[in-house]
Amino acid sequence: ASHVDIQDTFKILIATDIHLGYMEKDAIRGNDTYNTLEEILKCAQTNQVDFILLGGDLFHENKPSRRCLHTGITMLRKYCMGDSPILFNILSDQAINFNTSKFPWVNYQDENLNISIPVFSIHGNHDDPTGAEGLCALDLLGSCGLVNHFGHSQSVEKIQISPILMQKGSTKLALYGLGSIPDERLYRMFVNNQVTMLRPKEDQDEWFNLFTIHQNRSKHGPTNYIPEQFLDDFIDLVVWGHEHECLIAPTRNEQQLFYVTQPGSSVATSLSPGEAAKKHIGLLRVKGRKMNLQKIPLQTVRQFFIQDLVLADYQDLFTPDTPQVTKKVEDFCYAKVIEMIEEAERERLGCDLTPEKPLIRLRVDYSGGFEPFNVSRFSQKFVDRVANPKDIIHFVRRREQKEDIKGLTQTKYTGLRVEDLVKQYFEKVQLSLLTEQGMGKAIQEFVDKDEKDAIEELVSYQLEKTQRHLQARGVTTEQDIDAEILRFRNSKKNTTEEDEEIREAINRAKAHRLERGDNLQGLDMSDELADVAMDSDEDPAPVAPPTRGRGRGRGRGSRGRGRGELS
Amino acid sequence: ASHVDIQDTFKILIATDIHLGYMEKDAIRGNDTYNTLEEILKCAQTNQVDFILLGGDLFHENKPSRRCLHTGITMLRKYCMGDSPILFNILSDQAINFNTSKFPWVNYQDENLNISIPVFSIHGNHDDPTGAEGLCALDLLGSCGLVNHFGHSQSVEKIQISPILMQKGSTKLALYGLGSIPDERLYRMFVNNQVTMLRPKEDQDEWFNLFTIHQNRSKHGPTNYIPEQFLDDFIDLVVWGHEHECLIAPTRNEQQLFYVTQPGSSVATSLSPGEAAKKHIGLLRVKGRKMNLQKIPLQTVRQFFIQDLVLADYQDLFTPDTPQVTKKVEDFCYAKVIEMIEEAERERLGCDLTPEKPLIRLRVDYSGGFEPFNVSRFSQKFVDRVANPKDIIHFVRRREQKEDIKGLTQTKYTGLRVEDLVKQYFEKVQLSLLTEQGMGKAIQEFVDKDEKDAIEELVSYQLEKTQRHLQARGVTTEQDIDAEILRFRNSKKNTTEEDEEIREAINRAKAHRLERGDNLQGLDMSDELADVAMDSDEDPAPVAPPTRGRGRGRGRGSRGRGRGELS
Repeated sequence: ASHVDIQDTFKILIATDIHLGYMEKDAIRGNDTYNTLEEILKCAQTNQVDFILLGGDLFHENKPSRRCLHTGITMLRKYCMGDSPILFNILSDQAINFNTSKFPWVNYQDENLNISIPVFSIHGNHDDPTGAEGLCALDLLGSCGLVNHFGHSQSVEKIQISPILMQKGSTKLALYGLGSIPDERLYRMFVNNQVTMLRPKEDQDEWFNLFTIHQNRSKHGPTNYIPEQFLDDFIDLVVWGHEHECLIAPTRNEQQLFYVTQPGSSVATSLSPGEAAKKHIGLLRVKGRKMNLQKIPLQTVRQFFIQDLVLADYQDLFTPDTPQVTKKVEDFCYAKVIEMIEEAERERLGCDLTPEKPLIRLRVDYSGGFEPFNVSRFSQKFVDRVANPKDIIHFVRRREQKEDIKGLTQTKYTGLRVEDLVKQYFEKVQLSLLTEQGMGKAIQEFVDKDEKDAIEELVSYQLEKTQRHLQARGVTTEQDIDAEILRFRNSKKNTTEEDEEIREAINRAKAHRLERGDNLQGLDMSDELADVAMDSDEDPAPVAPPTRGRGRGRGRGSRGRGRGELS
Repeated sequence: ASHVDIQDTFKILIATDIHLGYMEKDAIRGNDTYNTLEEILKCAQTNQVDFILLGGDLFHENKPSRRCLHTGITMLRKYCMGDSPILFNILSDQAINFNTSKFPWVNYQDENLNISIPVFSIHGNHDDPTGAEGLCALDLLGSCGLVNHFGHSQSVEKIQISPILMQKGSTKLALYGLGSIPDERLYRMFVNNQVTMLRPKEDQDEWFNLFTIHQNRSKHGPTNYIPEQFLDDFIDLVVWGHEHECLIAPTRNEQQLFYVTQPGSSVATSLSPGEAAKKHIGLLRVKGRKMNLQKIPLQTVRQFFIQDLVLADYQDLFTPDTPQVTKKVEDFCYAKVIEMIEEAERERLGCDLTPEKPLIRLRVDYSGGFEPFNVSRFSQKFVDRVANPKDIIHFVRRREQKEDIKGLTQTKYTGLRVEDLVKQYFEKVQLSLLTEQGMGKAIQEFVDKDEKDAIEELVSYQLEKTQRHLQARGVTTEQDIDAEILRFRNSKKNTTEEDEEIREAINRAKAHRLERGDNLQGLDMSDELADVAMDSDEDPAPVAPPTRGRGRGRGRGSRGRGRGELS
């Protein structure tokens, strides 16, 4: 892609899941997401791209803090406004493309704004629209003209995706987007033939069709993901957001005959193997119907190293019967962590933009009679060298399935992970815990004010809090959980009257949600799973082998999916 | 001011306390503040003003909702961007004027923004800066270039106010601003000679000096307001925000020889007499050293009528011994309210922009042996005709001091007002109530994350909630409060462990605040008082009678206040 005719070539910077504001209050990691956003915007500027395309979750929180919004706005204004001319036109009806905006036109055509790099973004599950107005954090950036939020379907029944039709020189690009929708609902809509992608009537073969989506790509349940096969086969390239592992090199779907690029997040929001893959963004060039995607490694991303340790594999060093075995195990883990830190240091040599302290995770399988050692004491030794001292060690039990971190394949622990612990703890103490920390308020807002995301927010807030709480107390086993719960219950003598009120409110809330076709508990849990188990790049097995050559404009697909045309 | 030379005349739209987002979730009043902001901006556009000057509290909430921010941004972009040329220059060092911004220059000189009406605003006590970054809601509007936030002093020790020096034709305008600071702290700083207003070295007599401030103007306590005498006498006009009563016609301070205009809020945020004054904004013209302030009545403001009723004054109609006296009193009040509604209807004739349902408040003094009637049943009769059916009637006791609503003088009830009830209730149940509804969370955020406004937020949230709660239950007497508290206490068996934790956290928080020179309880209570008792226009009595003619540039003032010069 070095000497293509620049006048006919779209240069698009592709990134996703920037999660602005993630851990912003952490003393060490607080600026990570801000630094990386800046790196991404600088990169777009340096490469003089035509536009930036984001695949959702620009914001980590549905309601970002003031600092987060302020930083986002400031950076976009700094890097995306200026005098560089925009060299492509938009041919589609912008009032349709940006139908949820009060300024339904692309920002660079607004005569009051001098935009140098337009940003196009769909919303993710973290920054999805809520409230009576159906606004999301992106819409704030949209209202001040810094982002073009597209792909926001307002119906929960039926989706019609109208592309933004762009032309640069002779190249025609149709940009489709679909903001995050609960996977199961979208799955159902696909199955029920309620998702239509509109196409221009004329010259269909001339368009390069680019589709951005923010959904589960790996299968989390029978209908809790979107199979690639659901997507229209006229698409040329899918930019898949939401999945955090960087698998940015386009992979070909041999059934649908399109390519999928999964840029992955630009920050690790969990300490799972998928997040340990080196983070990249992409520079996509499209000329005519040809494309090229150049990987650009991100330099501001904090290093993350993860290793597994099965204690039973080191019988020459210790067995459960060895005197002072727990101390020996701890020393062994200490050495392993030091090794990882040193590896990180070597790798970081010369990378001035990379933060000093790496993220380190050692997963220790202690099945076979070993005892976990005291994690908080262990953590103390690394406060100066590691960005996440408190959760370096992760005890797990009974490895039932071999896993291969290096290969980054789907991992399955049947032992307890922190996430599992949280889930269990959460389910067990449920109502009383919720009561304790603000559920009353959430319920009241929900019922009184139709603040429909109050409960979801609270639940995810609780999950996060609980996780930190358990980690802080070094809870690693099921017994520990029970002890914790006992402690909690003893510390609280529930009253009947208030619990009754809350229970009633919850029931009303649930009924309301069910009417709307949601499932509160399921929704949040699946959300949580999505974050912790996205370390997979296994595509679902194709239903049928590819039997046809690449064809366009044909009415294909056994599901008889609706195929629309733009008027 | 009709035929002044337009090229030399600053035209400035003056408004304050717009309280965007106030009651935005109310079904009837939800859009009031948005409609009025739009009216104000349209008015600025129609009158082709040079700029808009706001005196603080543009936002009602410190952390405005997404809808509120979105609406604010959208309207400012709609009305304040465009092609009208800006006809004045800024001569001062903008890096100093806008020193808290990442874009420290006036928005209309930003080459990437096409601004037609620059907005200059100080922050109020509702939208004041918080958090480690010292950001306020205005700064979000600032970061996207829609507002010029000025007058934000970063020191808590010493304040130096550098004016924005503007020139239009031959007229020179020095715009000073000081964003809201707790009154007692600012009082102390004035007394300790720590407030300096810088002046240009050259041609001091040529400047028109305009000062915007957002503080208590009426005396709420010995040091809980800012006496006009504290302000420098070289000032020509003070635009006084925070006080909600519209007293926009400039009044002359005969000691300091400057004028003060108090535009008042553009929405009634309490049902007190001061808020019943007709709401206006101002069109200020400044040419050379002369000024003219034109009052512009706001048409979108919801009507508010308030009346007092002393039952003991109607002995010909009923006494406490009259059979069915309470029913008779209720009927009498009903007739009064109907009268007020009809008066509102007559007044609204032809005013298409004015909302249909008025705010009505009837203060019923039932001292002398009368009993209050059931307020909630009464309210039911007015749900279709009044915007605030639930709190029309306000029972008070023992009128000790005559008050004159028409004259809008300082009112002093020694009986119980809703606000007093709330305060009492709040103080009595204090800790347990806080624990109940989320204090744990607030404390945790406060202590863990330095989220220093979390508690303040919660306290004000609690005050509001409690007020609604008490109103809903028809609590109007002290006995009722005690009953409520008993009910509450019985419904809750406090645990020792958690209360201890919370108490400790509160103590730590308090200590932290005291260090910073704040007083948590005092701060919030005074805040609350400010809102409910701002129905006064009495200036504090001058310390000494005016004895001198208007003079400039002299080292005056017995307090020996620092007088600075701009370099």
